[in-house]
Amino acid sequence: MSTAVSPLAPTFVPDMPAIAGVRLATAEAGIRYKNRTDVLLALFDPGTTVAGVFTQSKCPSAPVEWCRAMIKSGKARALVVNSGNANAFTGKSGRAATKLTADIAAKAAGCKTSEIFLASTGVIGEPLDASKFAPVMKSLNARAKPDDFLAAAKAIMTTDTFPKVATANAKIGKAKITINGIAKGAGMIAPDMATMLSFIFTDAAISAPALQALLKENVTDTYNAVTIDGDTSTSDTLMMFATSQAKECPRIARASDPRLKAFTKALHQLLANLAEQIARDGEGARKLVEIVVEGATSDKSARKIAMSIANSPLVKTAIAGEDANWGRVVMAVGKAGEPADRDKLSIWFGGIRVAHQGARDPVYDEAAVSVEMKKPKIYLKVALGLGKGRDRVLTCDLTKEYIAINGDYRS
Amino acid sequence: MSTAVSPLAPTFVPDMPAIAGVRLATAEAGIRYKNRTDVLLALFDPGTTVAGVFTQSKCPSAPVEWCRAMIKSGKARALVVNSGNANAFTGKSGRAATKLTADIAAKAAGCKTSEIFLASTGVIGEPLDASKFAPVMKSLNARAKPDDFLAAAKAIMTTDTFPKVATANAKIGKAKITINGIAKGAGMIAPDMATMLSFIFTDAAISAPALQALLKENVTDTYNAVTIDGDTSTSDTLMMFATSQAKECPRIARASDPRLKAFTKALHQLLANLAEQIARDGEGARKLVEIVVEGATSDKSARKIAMSIANSPLVKTAIAGEDANWGRVVMAVGKAGEPADRDKLSIWFGGIRVAHQGARDPVYDEAAVSVEMKKPKIYLKVALGLGKGRDRVLTCDLTKEYIAINGDYRS
Repeated sequence: MSTAVSPLAPTFVPDMPAIAGVRLATAEAGIRYKNRTDVLLALFDPGTTVAGVFTQSKCPSAPVEWCRAMIKSGKARALVVNSGNANAFTGKSGRAATKLTADIAAKAAGCKTSEIFLASTGVIGEPLDASKFAPVMKSLNARAKPDDFLAAAKAIMTTDTFPKVATANAKIGKAKITINGIAKGAGMIAPDMATMLSFIFTDAAISAPALQALLKENVTDTYNAVTIDGDTSTSDTLMMFATSQAKECPRIARASDPRLKAFTKALHQLLANLAEQIARDGEGARKLVEIVVEGATSDKSARKIAMSIANSPLVKTAIAGEDANWGRVVMAVGKAGEPADRDKLSIWFGGIRVAHQGARDPVYDEAAVSVEMKKPKIYLKVALGLGKGRDRVLTCDLTKEYIAINGDYRS
Repeated sequence: MSTAVSPLAPTFVPDMPAIAGVRLATAEAGIRYKNRTDVLLALFDPGTTVAGVFTQSKCPSAPVEWCRAMIKSGKARALVVNSGNANAFTGKSGRAATKLTADIAAKAAGCKTSEIFLASTGVIGEPLDASKFAPVMKSLNARAKPDDFLAAAKAIMTTDTFPKVATANAKIGKAKITINGIAKGAGMIAPDMATMLSFIFTDAAISAPALQALLKENVTDTYNAVTIDGDTSTSDTLMMFATSQAKECPRIARASDPRLKAFTKALHQLLANLAEQIARDGEGARKLVEIVVEGATSDKSARKIAMSIANSPLVKTAIAGEDANWGRVVMAVGKAGEPADRDKLSIWFGGIRVAHQGARDPVYDEAAVSVEMKKPKIYLKVALGLGKGRDRVLTCDLTKEYIAINGDYRS
């Protein structure tokens, strides 16, 4: 297990303000890790609405199934997250563990079991001993305080090399609204899963259906535009909680309400910020790679092509080797199965066009490209010359360290 | 560039018999490599039929486009293959190079340009200097002889660590038919492409449409069931040539002719043999992995799930680490997007059931599984418990050597 912080980690960590109506506490429940916090309790004031987006996996974890069932009410009073065990592929015992965790939390928080939301990350296929939450839950409830977001981000880490937090402000009407987010990413080690968990908290007063619509709309170009290795966790979870506690905040019923304009923009930027932090902490990552595809027949087609490039082991190893290997980019465009005309294709690395109209750009300067390829962030642009479809995704390079992290024996 | 032969290389290399109507020669044209053969000329007697299956890439190489155009006639008199340069993404100059190569070969062989077939493998995006073929073509034509299949297999290698040949016999009516095949695989090094080239030669008398149907039908569970890294070359080419020169061979017009039964079976086995050799020579491969998916809702669904497992970096790195990490297999099943019910899923490594009905199999013996995981061939079986769909694919593990091979600087 690598303990070195990713060289791509952000140099600035913001102070995380309190969010009215949210209280947080963390503890060492001893689920798997020793001498570190591994459980987070977030408590919400009555009236808090909730929205969520979950893994597309056909074999989701027990907590994902729990949240999918409970989120229909749109009401949340607490969130319990543990690291060290994903409670995934644990069968009936997994369902029992979610129920027990929610019962313990509901008793401590004084709310209904159905108002408890759950997420778990860590080893897959091992039964989660939820009884371990009982001894710590009362104390978590008693200790919970409003400004512990960095500690919360630390408690949900698995093999992440740095905690991921972000904060933003926006006005809704005259009310000054705060949005805080925490995330854990796809830094994984055998036998842990690449799980993305992210939780967003705001003091805005937004109905659950509007919150759901906002979240879904803004996830496409943020979290869903990030890929580390193309693998999809059984446990990916993004949830957002709105406490309605901001002073003078109008109650917003619909996502299309024009008063949400600034809030939506701030939310999008916050999600994009956290998503980029996840790419910056991909396993073994030494380069952040931004891939822009334009001139596709549609945005959807551009996304497929961008993801084909971002998930190509040949492209990713070339970038690890600081090689502007546009031939492999052509290969990845070609295999995406989307409309592409070789003779209209142009490719840029770091703003320098290296291929044009179906052949190597005769005038490009190898030395200048070489300088670009040594940078920690690589810009890769592909122009298809077919239409107006455009997309942008983030990924990282594929290094020997990825193999070391994921190819070690399961201990 | 690794020169060590893959530890998974076959221990037995068959003697390759002559095929009536086929003559072969190889030469050093100096396309890219030094001190090794890099061009193959195969000459066919008049009356030879041809069939071909090519890359699904939307950005195919110039030789693939050439062959697709010429194969419509169903007639072949010669095949020219070069290694060292793929003539892919070379624009107009690429098309000119294919024309020039075919002109040179047609002149030497005394046939029409349209009866020449071409394949190229190697660096992408660099213009192919086809004039280099002119000085060697006459001598190739003069030296061509019937039993040089192993030398032919060597001339088309790029970063393959061993030449790939196979031979088979079958009767059509009373005629004893021979089928020979050569292939090069997905052993690649920056900036070469992972190109699969394979050429099959037989003395049977089979019409071009029947040959095409036979080839297409038998590629699905052989070449198309092999994946190294999920990347698709711009140049993948499988062609089959039938010379009609076997004594007393009846002329077969249709693939459904019952007299083709034994021939079809032999062809299938030969293609499967060559395809397995390609998996055994995957870049950096230390383990051959056979993945069987059964109980899917259809064979097509089983293929998608099998390929999702075979292309998962997390599954492949776990196997490299000799870790029976069935949690990652569940993940790969879940992300395939095909029908799957976690609670009906069972997973075996090396014949030992490690997961059953949505949870770890409580009785499995870790020590026995550990012994299986140390073997050079890993059997991985997934039973979905939904229907009768079944599929089998081959792949290899993902090792640091893959990164080293593909992440080196482009020289």
